Amino acid sequence: MTADLETLSRWQSHGGTQFVYRHASQACRCDMTFSLFLPPQAEDGPCPLLIYLSGLTCTHANVTEKGEFRAAAARHGLAILCPDTSPRGDGIPDDEAYNFGTGAGFYVDASEAPYDTNYRMASYVSDELPAIVVDHAGIDAGRQSIFGHSMGGHGAIVTALRHSGRFRSVSAFAPICAPSSTEWSQKAFARYLGSDETAWRAWDSVALIEDGARVGELLVDQGEADEFLESGLRPWLLKEACAQAGIPLTLNMREGYDHSYYFISSFMSEHVAWHAERLKA
Amino acid sequence: MTADLETLSRWQSHGGTQFVYRHASQACRCDMTFSLFLPPQAEDGPCPLLIYLSGLTCTHANVTEKGEFRAAAARHGLAILCPDTSPRGDGIPDDEAYNFGTGAGFYVDASEAPYDTNYRMASYVSDELPAIVVDHAGIDAGRQSIFGHSMGGHGAIVTALRHSGRFRSVSAFAPICAPSSTEWSQKAFARYLGSDETAWRAWDSVALIEDGARVGELLVDQGEADEFLESGLRPWLLKEACAQAGIPLTLNMREGYDHSYYFISSFMSEHVAWHAERLKA
Repeated sequence: MTADLETLSRWQSHGGTQFVYRHASQACRCDMTFSLFLPPQAEDGPCPLLIYLSGLTCTHANVTEKGEFRAAAARHGLAILCPDTSPRGDGIPDDEAYNFGTGAGFYVDASEAPYDTNYRMASYVSDELPAIVVDHAGIDAGRQSIFGHSMGGHGAIVTALRHSGRFRSVSAFAPICAPSSTEWSQKAFARYLGSDETAWRAWDSVALIEDGARVGELLVDQGEADEFLESGLRPWLLKEACAQAGIPLTLNMREGYDHSYYFISSFMSEHVAWHAERLKA
Repeated sequence: MTADLETLSRWQSHGGTQFVYRHASQACRCDMTFSLFLPPQAEDGPCPLLIYLSGLTCTHANVTEKGEFRAAAARHGLAILCPDTSPRGDGIPDDEAYNFGTGAGFYVDASEAPYDTNYRMASYVSDELPAIVVDHAGIDAGRQSIFGHSMGGHGAIVTALRHSGRFRSVSAFAPICAPSSTEWSQKAFARYLGSDETAWRAWDSVALIEDGARVGELLVDQGEADEFLESGLRPWLLKEACAQAGIPLTLNMREGYDHSYYFISSFMSEHVAWHAERLKA
């Protein structure tokens, strides 16, 4: 593994170190930027890794600045990896829509031209990037978990469902639970994956569970005042699928909370603690 | 008191509510925007108020998004008020420099034209805005404290020194301790306050203490890797002045920390807890 990482920023924070790196991604065939927080415990030996996947329009920066994860990560000794949400740069096929193209990779491996060359975020976040970080930062490769928000909540659950046993735990804030059947995500799915909707089921949490994929359990927090609740998120479909499949789901409906980082940051420390318990079990 | 506040944003967060308001300021003779966090305890009765003054180039938004103060404020039941750093808008005298004009009001009441019409941030943050917030949000007017970062750390200490007994406690992250004598702030002081440097002493923490102003005690956190440590901040001057004046100063020098919100957020909960102890004593 050649991990040729360029350090863009490095800050001391909450007793640990917040890095931002850039590197040439093989999966996405472009330069990619990500952030990595190493807790103070990283000085004493390999730490578990918790991967956070961000939502539409975000880069690594949104959660790194507003996610309020460092206090909890330092308390529990977890490294936190925050990838970008899509390939970016000159020559990357893009679109004017905010929910398709740059900033909206949806954590799939695209099968359709011209997107199939760069839009390989599934391979990037599940394989290439964790391997680089494990190698570079001395992470305990056998202890990895994943979570995310909105499009990234979809990404976290789908990634865990598609790689059985690879992650110790998976959780989400306001995930897009059934992207195949919501207008919010259908345009992206059609362009990345083609018009045959049966192919979409392999990238849809509810469909994957219906088709037999499993995780040990699921934690989801969802704001009841989230403006995208009905139009894009629809946690009741995940609840139904989990109930039918016998997957224990803790679905916390949070009164008054919306879709923003003011919501995410409110429950971030609970999610980090929940993953820590499972990563250190 | 007519508090004609326009609500720009309102988010549920950490069990409380984060507001952003705009209003017509009498002190600054322009529209001003500020943020106010009300903890969950505000529903049960008047809360203490902790005012946070931001640094150069900032608005209310930087600390509101990156300051990580809400968890601690909700735990301790404090309202947190975050004003802007200067008047803004059409007709406000400005300058190309980042350390003078818009974003750099230095929390003084300017005496020099053309700045004396709008640049009255001292009156705004110590009198006008707290009175509006007390009236509007049911704050316990007798329990107020103040803190801030960099230019806002200067603002907090100077405001407390100039209004003896008005604030229960005062603290700062990386404050500009002696703005009269650092290049960083001299341009602003000369334009706002005139060329007679004796007038500057009334707006300089170290000089105010030398001239007899007092606060009960001071808490300051300062990063040792702060790039502005020598050129603008110089906490040793504050340490010397406090020692001579018999003001108990807790000066925490933090190894590896810089001047950013990654530093501020790391020690935010300690500052909020420190103020809470004094506000609720």
